[in-house]
Amino acid sequence: MITTDICIIGAGPVGLFAVFEAGLLKMRCHLIDALPQVGGQLSEIYPQKPIYDIPGYPEVKAQELVDNLMEQIAAFHPTFTLGERVESLNKQDDGSYIVTTNDGTSVHCQVVVIAGGLGCFEPRKPEIQNLEQFEGKGVAYMVKNPELLRDRRVVLAGGGDSALDWTIFLANVAAQVTLVHRSDSFRGAPDSAEKVFELAKEGKINLVLQSTISSVRGTGHVQEVNIVGKDKTVTTLETDHLIPLFGLTPKLGPIADWGLTIDKAAISVDTVDYSTNVERIYAIGDINTYPGKLKLILCGFHEAALMCQSAFKYVYPNQKLSFKYTTVNGVPTF
Amino acid sequence: MITTDICIIGAGPVGLFAVFEAGLLKMRCHLIDALPQVGGQLSEIYPQKPIYDIPGYPEVKAQELVDNLMEQIAAFHPTFTLGERVESLNKQDDGSYIVTTNDGTSVHCQVVVIAGGLGCFEPRKPEIQNLEQFEGKGVAYMVKNPELLRDRRVVLAGGGDSALDWTIFLANVAAQVTLVHRSDSFRGAPDSAEKVFELAKEGKINLVLQSTISSVRGTGHVQEVNIVGKDKTVTTLETDHLIPLFGLTPKLGPIADWGLTIDKAAISVDTVDYSTNVERIYAIGDINTYPGKLKLILCGFHEAALMCQSAFKYVYPNQKLSFKYTTVNGVPTF
Repeated sequence: MITTDICIIGAGPVGLFAVFEAGLLKMRCHLIDALPQVGGQLSEIYPQKPIYDIPGYPEVKAQELVDNLMEQIAAFHPTFTLGERVESLNKQDDGSYIVTTNDGTSVHCQVVVIAGGLGCFEPRKPEIQNLEQFEGKGVAYMVKNPELLRDRRVVLAGGGDSALDWTIFLANVAAQVTLVHRSDSFRGAPDSAEKVFELAKEGKINLVLQSTISSVRGTGHVQEVNIVGKDKTVTTLETDHLIPLFGLTPKLGPIADWGLTIDKAAISVDTVDYSTNVERIYAIGDINTYPGKLKLILCGFHEAALMCQSAFKYVYPNQKLSFKYTTVNGVPTF
Repeated sequence: MITTDICIIGAGPVGLFAVFEAGLLKMRCHLIDALPQVGGQLSEIYPQKPIYDIPGYPEVKAQELVDNLMEQIAAFHPTFTLGERVESLNKQDDGSYIVTTNDGTSVHCQVVVIAGGLGCFEPRKPEIQNLEQFEGKGVAYMVKNPELLRDRRVVLAGGGDSALDWTIFLANVAAQVTLVHRSDSFRGAPDSAEKVFELAKEGKINLVLQSTISSVRGTGHVQEVNIVGKDKTVTTLETDHLIPLFGLTPKLGPIADWGLTIDKAAISVDTVDYSTNVERIYAIGDINTYPGKLKLILCGFHEAALMCQSAFKYVYPNQKLSFKYTTVNGVPTF
């Protein structure tokens, strides 16, 4: 049994920075992540991609930010369980929790912080014949690495921002981009929709409106899809990839049993301290929601700082929290 | 008359980063600061001091952070009025504002953002005979640069965290440190108070409790102070500096006439968008307050991001805001 003050579920940038804010208050952290390395989406999906909106960094590569965060928290000796998924949460009589993973690792902690990014949610899958059979063989529900689509034929489906943004982005990368959408207007941002219509007009993408994809076919890998129009006509289109982008849906399973209030695929929190409706459980970063929420890393950093001020009372019930500036006190390590 | 979308009062780190978040939404900013350079306290008070709690920076010098923020926002061409103080705010019939400085510079804007740090507030001055006469001549109400106190004799007064923290810090810097406090217990953090008692016991500082300072004397510069005990006995103490630390009080003047709700020397805001009670006026950074508020630069960055999402409707009343990630879209400049 691992014993710690705070068990952080998710070792993305926000979970990592929470270790720093916790450390300033002398609280120890253990982090669990289903991925085999720290950094969350940054390391897994776009390590070499530049990020421009981290305050104070005109440009920073995703992996570089993760490396810097690891250096920043090193003084507080966080411990990690990587490549394992959290399965259960058991409240003890004294209010503390035991968190257990699918591999049987157990962590005893006073406070649980869910910093799961989008990890606890899964993509919404459309009803397309044979779809799941081609997952990983040309069918994917997110664009992890656009470079893998360079000079390939891609069919995207959906009408939200994701579908529009990736259509625009891939227009310059893929050999052929087709966007299939069941309506003839888009839910996504008007100027993105406008751009997509423009690209279609210029012949840079194929736009197939009022249509849905009915089936996928191929030998070992996606080779073609059938597209059905509102008038029931069926067209067959050759493609190497099919990427349905219909948003995310909460992944039922462990998290659903924790009694947390879920609002539109995210965990509702109180902005005073980013606490959930369950005592001693907090949610920070992309996985939470509240009025005004922006899914930005920089917002997760703020949430981590306020969360720690609140979590302190469970870790040190008899101490008054004293807030110190690092500019005055430095970083007292342990 | 300068015309802009957002007029930001205060060019500290939070005001500067607001330019970036505004720029992503195609809103232009003009910044006004009473100091002759950008960077706020960071550049003015501790440019060479390392900061440890900027996420992703294990350590960064204050001025370096300011320089990086200036580089980050350069693409959005912010304009500046430096070395002038905002004097008045005039609402126009269409809801927009004209902001005017003490030098007569006028800025017409749709939205006003107060990012004034501690700048709109002034230190609370105790009643000490001749005190104001020695301001800048040994009397100061904050420690701007502790190096200037090296090997000097310093008298501090107060019982809060500031007084305790600086007593502890200066114990290793000044030639002689005396802390004068009217009670025999402290309002500040218990462990800081404990440390101060310890330092006194070790003879590293002088602790004068149940006492107040009644007068300052000197020829051209502070040379001695009179200390009065509860039993009315008066002691004279030689010193080079007197630093009363009794907190800040809102500086009445312009800001008091704007109808803003003030709570304990800070502007009350709504955490949905960091708006004040007055339409089109926002407050971000150290100058605002809300339940859970932490006066950290990283929190101000978050506040700036959410503020911009809300300010957008005043700058582009007929447009739907489309939220984009810089990792997907880069930084579209103007």
